[in-house]
Amino acid sequence: MPRRALYLQSGGVTAVLNASAAGVIDACRDAGLPLLAARDGLAGLLRGDIVDTDLVDRGEIARLCSLPGGCFGASRRMLPAFDADPAPWWQLRDVLQAYGVDTVFLNGGNGSMASAAHLAQFGDVVGYPLTVVGVPKTIDNDLPATDTCPGYGSAAKYLATSMLEAILDLRSMAGGKRVFILETMGRHTGWLAAACALAATATTPGPQIVLVPEVPFNPEAFLAAVQTALNRDGYCAVAVAEGLRDQAGNFLAEARAANTYGFEQLGGVGQTLAALLRQRLGVAVHLAVADYLQRAGRHLAAAVDVAQAYAVGAAAVPLALAGQGGCMTTVVRTGEHPYTWSVGQVPLAVVADQERALPAAFLAASGLGVSEACVTALRPLIEGERPPPFVEGVPDYRSVAWPKARPLIPTVNP
Amino acid sequence: MPRRALYLQSGGVTAVLNASAAGVIDACRDAGLPLLAARDGLAGLLRGDIVDTDLVDRGEIARLCSLPGGCFGASRRMLPAFDADPAPWWQLRDVLQAYGVDTVFLNGGNGSMASAAHLAQFGDVVGYPLTVVGVPKTIDNDLPATDTCPGYGSAAKYLATSMLEAILDLRSMAGGKRVFILETMGRHTGWLAAACALAATATTPGPQIVLVPEVPFNPEAFLAAVQTALNRDGYCAVAVAEGLRDQAGNFLAEARAANTYGFEQLGGVGQTLAALLRQRLGVAVHLAVADYLQRAGRHLAAAVDVAQAYAVGAAAVPLALAGQGGCMTTVVRTGEHPYTWSVGQVPLAVVADQERALPAAFLAASGLGVSEACVTALRPLIEGERPPPFVEGVPDYRSVAWPKARPLIPTVNP
Repeated sequence: MPRRALYLQSGGVTAVLNASAAGVIDACRDAGLPLLAARDGLAGLLRGDIVDTDLVDRGEIARLCSLPGGCFGASRRMLPAFDADPAPWWQLRDVLQAYGVDTVFLNGGNGSMASAAHLAQFGDVVGYPLTVVGVPKTIDNDLPATDTCPGYGSAAKYLATSMLEAILDLRSMAGGKRVFILETMGRHTGWLAAACALAATATTPGPQIVLVPEVPFNPEAFLAAVQTALNRDGYCAVAVAEGLRDQAGNFLAEARAANTYGFEQLGGVGQTLAALLRQRLGVAVHLAVADYLQRAGRHLAAAVDVAQAYAVGAAAVPLALAGQGGCMTTVVRTGEHPYTWSVGQVPLAVVADQERALPAAFLAASGLGVSEACVTALRPLIEGERPPPFVEGVPDYRSVAWPKARPLIPTVNP
Repeated sequence: MPRRALYLQSGGVTAVLNASAAGVIDACRDAGLPLLAARDGLAGLLRGDIVDTDLVDRGEIARLCSLPGGCFGASRRMLPAFDADPAPWWQLRDVLQAYGVDTVFLNGGNGSMASAAHLAQFGDVVGYPLTVVGVPKTIDNDLPATDTCPGYGSAAKYLATSMLEAILDLRSMAGGKRVFILETMGRHTGWLAAACALAATATTPGPQIVLVPEVPFNPEAFLAAVQTALNRDGYCAVAVAEGLRDQAGNFLAEARAANTYGFEQLGGVGQTLAALLRQRLGVAVHLAVADYLQRAGRHLAAAVDVAQAYAVGAAAVPLALAGQGGCMTTVVRTGEHPYTWSVGQVPLAVVADQERALPAAFLAASGLGVSEACVTALRPLIEGERPPPFVEGVPDYRSVAWPKARPLIPTVNP
């Protein structure tokens, strides 16, 4: 039975996830390793929905580097521990065996790396040895042991640029004493909100306030800082992570009624802050919610992020061929000014279900922003532009057609 | 006394407003017409805050074409009718006289064109004749008598691209049966929401639902259409204008409590729709609110919009020199496939305080979208890319420094 590998995308998608797919596919071709891919991540793999990447032209594979989303489809379906639920383990073993797959490349975040760790136990637990190499991906940038997570740099560039452009708007009409809030993703960590501080360059100002989940929200300090900014600058720009919490550890987005700040509220944290500002300061507040746009914004991808996404994909292949499974590829920072990086690796156990918060040194003493050290560390991750081709005024995001793969044991997947 | 002109920016800013400024400045220089500019629009002009554009290098002026916002500052301050409030008329006359200004270029939308029409009456009313030429600008695209309003094409390109990218995200994870709502600006007209339909090209799908203020909201038809899309496509993408109204003509964004849809609600129309969907269909809803980002997103400007903004600015100058004041420059569509255009003019009275809604032919029969005719008509307005230069990972939006102008009668503005 010839050796065969399989690639799957797991968890929320990013602007450069498909660049990692291109890296894996190109490296497999160069090494002569046949590569299948699961549709819809683990969900598709469980139902035997598998395609053959080897039947697609190099030119189409190259297009993946400028295509956002998940080119095979992704899902949040995870593989639980065997003791908790053995059924999907046996189901997966049957599918993998039918397709002759002995190598898996799993592209995902910290939750997905727990699934990867489970797959790496297949030999011991269900008697079907697999070489498993994780490929990192998450806009949240919360995987430990890697300098950055592919997807983050582009989301960060999108948010920094958006905040900068909104600030130019505010400054153009500074007589209005307006407050602008940009709500970012980041339920547990503040990496994305922190990226808004990158709007500040040598010649342009950044947001006056950045609120992250790592710092419990202090409403009085916040209101005072907004008032100070309005008095001094004529406007106030605020970045806030969706996962901001109050002093008791509850999400502000779930704040309710008189028992908290004296007003009824539905919706996200941005709405909560806007209502607080209107009630307490009587100011005009504009709110932008980036939502999916920040993780899908391939039109504004960072060139370094595209390159890193591709590289951590490609580097997974020689590791697998050398029998060095049970690990995830990483980005290693090898130099500053200029920023240089290489690809490394780390055992899956180090990253599975682990979460990296903003370190204390990245937080401003005021509790209302990030430090210069944070801006300096994150700046290189958003460098460079690599816009997609455009057609009819919008990016050319034609999907790639993937032919179905044939199982080696046809009866299992009729 | 030498002839002197003055330029001012009025109303909300756009991604290409400064390209119009560059057009006016370049054309004045070429014609040898001295050009001043008011800071903060009419508000700054009233207080005599005036700068001299002639003291700034051509290279800096060229940078205006890639700088969003208002390079002189803008304001929503308008000039009321003389009968309603004569004081600002006399105040303005004194300032203009002190600076020797006999020609005004006013860059704004329909409200601002009413101010321009008032300025054009200065000779008759306060005995100080002014040649006034309006230069169109508004992301709302609601000025009559012009094929498009500079600023709209870039906002439309931003929204179409954002919607397209979000749709790729939704389709990547279509197992999730998710609804995505993108709330656009547009308090009275649906041009911006309609632009989201431009996400659809020959190879990629557009949003299944587009809700505009021109069509009273029908909740049952909306809910049925969302359910149909979820069943058929696995996801539903919705574009909604902030100014969507119910059957009684009230803004949905102001909908309240049990008397309407059975739930308490603060926030915009997107929140209202999201709450309705969660309550009635029990589905997961994501909401993005573009807010200022859509009008400030110069990084994604349409090349045709930049060119039109510049041209309607430049064309105002020969009109003024020929004594043909009392008009606004316009974009005239001169051909289709390929789209061609030229610059025309229209009396200020035709556009002052007038509003152009989406025509009936641009609305889908279902009441939940726009027509093919609409997409065909709008498509050329978002064509072409003209990205700004980048520095440190974000656009180079250094501001231009404008030296103060000297009044000819120094005592008036000490």
